[in-house]
Amino acid sequence: MALIVQKYGGTSVGSVERIRNVAERVAKFKMLGHQVVVVVSAISGETNRLIALAKEINKDPDPRELDVIVSTGEQVTIALLAMAIKDLGLKAKSYTGWQVPLRTDNAYTKARIEHIDDQAMRADLNSGHVVVVAGFQGIDADNNITTLGRGGSDTTGVALAAALKADECQIYTDVDGVYTTDPRIVPEARKLDTITFEEMLELASLGSKVLQIRAVEFAGKYHIKLRVLSSFEDEGEGTLITFEENSMEQPVISGIAFNRDEAKLTILGVPDKPGVAGLILAPIADANIDVDMIVQNVGHDGTTDFSFTVQRSEMKKAMDVLEIVKGAIGAREVIGADKIAKVSIVGVGMRTHAGIASKMFKALAAENINIQMISTSEIKISVVVEDKYMELAVRALHQAFELDKEPASA
Amino acid sequence: MALIVQKYGGTSVGSVERIRNVAERVAKFKMLGHQVVVVVSAISGETNRLIALAKEINKDPDPRELDVIVSTGEQVTIALLAMAIKDLGLKAKSYTGWQVPLRTDNAYTKARIEHIDDQAMRADLNSGHVVVVAGFQGIDADNNITTLGRGGSDTTGVALAAALKADECQIYTDVDGVYTTDPRIVPEARKLDTITFEEMLELASLGSKVLQIRAVEFAGKYHIKLRVLSSFEDEGEGTLITFEENSMEQPVISGIAFNRDEAKLTILGVPDKPGVAGLILAPIADANIDVDMIVQNVGHDGTTDFSFTVQRSEMKKAMDVLEIVKGAIGAREVIGADKIAKVSIVGVGMRTHAGIASKMFKALAAENINIQMISTSEIKISVVVEDKYMELAVRALHQAFELDKEPASA
Repeated sequence: MALIVQKYGGTSVGSVERIRNVAERVAKFKMLGHQVVVVVSAISGETNRLIALAKEINKDPDPRELDVIVSTGEQVTIALLAMAIKDLGLKAKSYTGWQVPLRTDNAYTKARIEHIDDQAMRADLNSGHVVVVAGFQGIDADNNITTLGRGGSDTTGVALAAALKADECQIYTDVDGVYTTDPRIVPEARKLDTITFEEMLELASLGSKVLQIRAVEFAGKYHIKLRVLSSFEDEGEGTLITFEENSMEQPVISGIAFNRDEAKLTILGVPDKPGVAGLILAPIADANIDVDMIVQNVGHDGTTDFSFTVQRSEMKKAMDVLEIVKGAIGAREVIGADKIAKVSIVGVGMRTHAGIASKMFKALAAENINIQMISTSEIKISVVVEDKYMELAVRALHQAFELDKEPASA
Repeated sequence: MALIVQKYGGTSVGSVERIRNVAERVAKFKMLGHQVVVVVSAISGETNRLIALAKEINKDPDPRELDVIVSTGEQVTIALLAMAIKDLGLKAKSYTGWQVPLRTDNAYTKARIEHIDDQAMRADLNSGHVVVVAGFQGIDADNNITTLGRGGSDTTGVALAAALKADECQIYTDVDGVYTTDPRIVPEARKLDTITFEEMLELASLGSKVLQIRAVEFAGKYHIKLRVLSSFEDEGEGTLITFEENSMEQPVISGIAFNRDEAKLTILGVPDKPGVAGLILAPIADANIDVDMIVQNVGHDGTTDFSFTVQRSEMKKAMDVLEIVKGAIGAREVIGADKIAKVSIVGVGMRTHAGIASKMFKALAAENINIQMISTSEIKISVVVEDKYMELAVRALHQAFELDKEPASA
């Protein structure tokens, strides 16, 4: 007997018929003797409907009250699914975030999980219930309702798996696994049977929509066995996220990620002295804006230019902060650009292979694509290019690294 | 400075525009220096939409999960209203039932309030917030979400007024007060400036839709000053429910109530011996079915017939219980009738006036309306008639007791 956490996204519970299908899948695992905890998102479209309703009152809705509204989406799904599971003759019980309780910090609309009390769920599991938990939501120390931000249901799933020491966390989605890149852009994209945790982390952080990065982080931290599967297919093992690296089978590059949701901010004529990067980024962090890529080049004439990327939706807010920073540090100008895209190649294999970067840059140059920013990590190289070249760049790289072919031993 | 609890029903918050209007009314009272607690229902139609969604999964939805779903309706409204109030420059905070917390028993879909913790609300009121509470919902001792049944938001309003020792509880609705009867049936129906608590209790229990009976009970028990007003008119004092009786100004009859939502159950050939009524009704009560009128006539040949009315929606369930009871007590037959209506005249004045009943029966006889059941209390006479005669009966009684005219002293 194993304890399995299953997470179903909005499309997987997008209709009464689909909710019944999920109930049947859950029942299959329960019948095999497993304990099952199910995490669900809101019915697809529902979160957007609720946000639109809030925006009818105020274009910039109060974050506390927005979370109160938005969290009702998952609350409806858990009850519908619990009913559908009961209809199959099983015991089931729904849990909202506060009923778990799942405690978070108080950063409304993007809260972070701090603690999960497993006592109530454990008692229900032991008495034979399927436990159905609302994803995406929690409560802070003062019992205010919080939400974890878009895609937060993945994080709920993995965090519950960690709290319950589950044997496996299965993320059901509308694709059947993790691909070398998005098949809608590169038809030759290939499904991966396994991917290392580090690669998945990079892919998630780079905008690959299959799994939310915080979910992968959690899985890494607590060593959760994580699997991505399709909720629309009965067969298939999906993609298993592994902690083992086997260089014999490891391809150099595992996948290509891309992201159009960022904006680039540049502050020009920054006095080139120690500590100035901190002076720029501290107010950004204080404003609760997440920064992704950061690039600072060597200065000249005592000044330097400093660039970074943020979520596109936060560009205006970040620009406002930078205008204040500009005055404080005596910089010259602040420039924002939102017509950009980030394209990244990811693979643990690149650690042991030289020339990956130059191969990447050559492939882009061959298509006449100009690179605006470069950032690298041990297993990833990211470039920022003009928005309109994104798809071309992804295709060129997929071909250059022969990702459509089964990897030979590296 | 007074503490005022205001309750707004589903039509009063039926659109974004109306929610803004409510916010403005709340602000008006706040500006006058009062502390304001607002209780809201779900946006009109929303509760029905949610119930229909649940019924897509199962025609007879699991009650616990149904409450989880249905309670989201009010949760959306409180947040929208809190945002709208904030937009007017005031401080406001929404409270779900569990955030209050408002404790109930565990009778899902028709729970009763057991205790309200006023500590959190009180702290917010003292720091200048408008407190916006979800009506209709609470939690039981095990933190399960419960709902109070249809119209439960009135009860929430009055119960909060009691817990907070409010100076007045204002029930805003789509009518401007309590009428002698429903103006849609009798155009001459007249608005009452005051009505006694006892009369209101009878009217509410008899199906007058202005106020929920449990709300009136609560108001009576805790001596809450209760006022019914229109949320669509800025002027008008509505109808005040008073605790004083002034026989000088008291009309004999205050109003006529009617109710089409009941069904009549008769168990024939019941052995006529002590304790048999209890044997019949105890299993009904155990099945959590509320009984309204009860009639047992004198027996003959050692048996008697026993009739009572229940909510029409519970007729089937009650019939099933009675079939079992029939066997247990050796009765002959169980008959159910749902094509009935109850019509009642109410007035504290009838205490001191003889001949009210005979005047009522004569008025009905003059229209050839047959009376199926009669039940009386100190300030009320109810009759059950065939469904199709209901409107005729109401009009005839309204005229017979001259309710269209301002009362002279009694």
